[in-house]
Amino acid sequence: MAVTYELIKEEKNTKARLGKLHTPHGVIETPIFMPVGTKATVKAMTPEELKDMQTQIILSNTYHLYLRPGHKLIEEAGGLHKFMNWDKPILTDSGGFQVFSLGELRDITEKGVHFRSHIDGSKHFISPEKSIEIQNSLGSDIAMAFDECTPYPADKEYVKKSLERTTRWAKRCQEVHKKSDVQGIFGIVQGGMYRDLREQSVKEITDLDFPGYAVGGLSVGEPADLMYGVLDYTVPLLPKNKPRYLMGVGSPDYLFEAVIRGIDMADCVLPTRIARNGTVITSRGRLVVKNAKYAKDFSPLDPECNCYACKNYTRAYIRHLFKANEILGARLTTIHNLYFLIQLMENIRDAIKKDRLLEYREEFYKKYGYDL
Amino acid sequence: MAVTYELIKEEKNTKARLGKLHTPHGVIETPIFMPVGTKATVKAMTPEELKDMQTQIILSNTYHLYLRPGHKLIEEAGGLHKFMNWDKPILTDSGGFQVFSLGELRDITEKGVHFRSHIDGSKHFISPEKSIEIQNSLGSDIAMAFDECTPYPADKEYVKKSLERTTRWAKRCQEVHKKSDVQGIFGIVQGGMYRDLREQSVKEITDLDFPGYAVGGLSVGEPADLMYGVLDYTVPLLPKNKPRYLMGVGSPDYLFEAVIRGIDMADCVLPTRIARNGTVITSRGRLVVKNAKYAKDFSPLDPECNCYACKNYTRAYIRHLFKANEILGARLTTIHNLYFLIQLMENIRDAIKKDRLLEYREEFYKKYGYDL
Repeated sequence: MAVTYELIKEEKNTKARLGKLHTPHGVIETPIFMPVGTKATVKAMTPEELKDMQTQIILSNTYHLYLRPGHKLIEEAGGLHKFMNWDKPILTDSGGFQVFSLGELRDITEKGVHFRSHIDGSKHFISPEKSIEIQNSLGSDIAMAFDECTPYPADKEYVKKSLERTTRWAKRCQEVHKKSDVQGIFGIVQGGMYRDLREQSVKEITDLDFPGYAVGGLSVGEPADLMYGVLDYTVPLLPKNKPRYLMGVGSPDYLFEAVIRGIDMADCVLPTRIARNGTVITSRGRLVVKNAKYAKDFSPLDPECNCYACKNYTRAYIRHLFKANEILGARLTTIHNLYFLIQLMENIRDAIKKDRLLEYREEFYKKYGYDL
Repeated sequence: MAVTYELIKEEKNTKARLGKLHTPHGVIETPIFMPVGTKATVKAMTPEELKDMQTQIILSNTYHLYLRPGHKLIEEAGGLHKFMNWDKPILTDSGGFQVFSLGELRDITEKGVHFRSHIDGSKHFISPEKSIEIQNSLGSDIAMAFDECTPYPADKEYVKKSLERTTRWAKRCQEVHKKSDVQGIFGIVQGGMYRDLREQSVKEITDLDFPGYAVGGLSVGEPADLMYGVLDYTVPLLPKNKPRYLMGVGSPDYLFEAVIRGIDMADCVLPTRIARNGTVITSRGRLVVKNAKYAKDFSPLDPECNCYACKNYTRAYIRHLFKANEILGARLTTIHNLYFLIQLMENIRDAIKKDRLLEYREEFYKKYGYDL
């Protein structure tokens, strides 16, 4: 099998786990945060910079790469790894989330989704089969089954119909998947905020026996407590010998709470997106480095951080770069934010090893300024 | 003296010279091309990337740094080197060129130049004294005397009056310069395209005995042959034991022709500016990587180049990055263009050593597609 999960340890006081995810391009220590490289590049970064900060895996987006430059072109280039000069694992999403986010530009049928490109308005159709074809061409280590991410809020009847279609689509993905030796497909559990529907979806999707499972349909605008509740009752239903992936989560509090509930993998554009806007995540909470109060602040973004940006530059300099619209500004804040989250996950893994995850969370939140 | 020039060798067949320029932050082998870091950053680059490509010195702009973030702030930060994390030599211009380029926004008097900021329209005044004060605060290794860069074309009477004022200003710069132990000021020769005025300016400026001299007022829109002509009769008048700097020149042909005429230093925003626009300088001439014909071109920007971009990425990938508006695109083309010019200057120095500069130029032009 292309992708296998090795459970190393379960933490004593929470549902957190330590594991190793074996993929064609290497072994990933979990729990892990995955930086997002939407268009075959983690924005503003080189692969070497990502490796320097111990990035183990990145995520790339099927929808965007299908539209531009096109999956066939990437296949001709030798696959996504070679195209973008990244030789470690890659996970690709199914394209579903982006397509459904198009709103009026798309139309969902049993066969698949008709939509118009956000770039030039051209007409396209992505089905489960097409999604897998694209992901096969890209050659990611982990492909995602094509699902419908139900919005929040959504009425129960719709969510039920949708999750059942997601199951049928998952089956179709599995059937056409041609590269099970070099690529694993993860199934996605849906069911909205309804416990019985989550149970139904877990049953249907795990019956298909994927090498990994995502909890989908979360972090879509619902209150944090609702998300935690869904994780509380959904994650324990998933098989222990498979990795669990929570999509679209990347703030320190979400990462802590997800891991505590048994999640092994997460991704989010948040750290890279807010970085380009001049906002950094620090051990003392978020900091908007563009603010006037940092004009003469000659301390690093985060005095406790050892990233390249914090070791070599001051808030005053980085603020100047942002005011002057200089690319190096976004580079430095991106390096910092990704380093911060990757370091956080390393610390979390270490705390799991020592059965002190709750203590570590408390220490972290105290400085970070987050009330449980 | 803070800055001294050591003449190593004169080429047999041209006026080209090999030299070493000793500065407070290290020794520079000349002839040299200096990347431009206008706003305390070479656009899109880190200092480490510049060092990796053997950048020996960078140029930064007094006008821009005076306006934002302000020279006093940079002084408080410990000087420009520390502020921007660059520990090798820095040359700062005088601010004159930028101020004069403001057109209707400025007014020149004997005392100095009144102007309005291009950022917020606020009123400012830069005099020779102020320019040196700013450059002292920045702490560059090489400061430039405040001069008037006469435009092209300009009538002789105006050019004569202007060059004479430039001489008076140069004297005033020298008089207020406080840091001759850690910073050298270069004088600037003006005189437009008039041989007798160039001779007059050289005499007046060299009489002041600066540690280096720039040939100013060239590369301002005049035909290349006219520039070469001015260099032909001006450079030999400059003292042999001082470096000669040609401002605003950065295309391979200009660099060759300047060096052949005895120039030791040059700078230009060209390589970094066209890079961000998707144009690269290669051994076979310029290449606009955004063009559709490179969509499936899986060869490097320049197959003969050993830069990071050429070793790791294809034209197809870099084109994709530009089409998708990704920062990494500008990073890769900037790396390539700077590497290319720095490598070119290294090859030129090597050719001078071997007394074969004209042969090397011919070999280069043949591939590059430039007709002498």
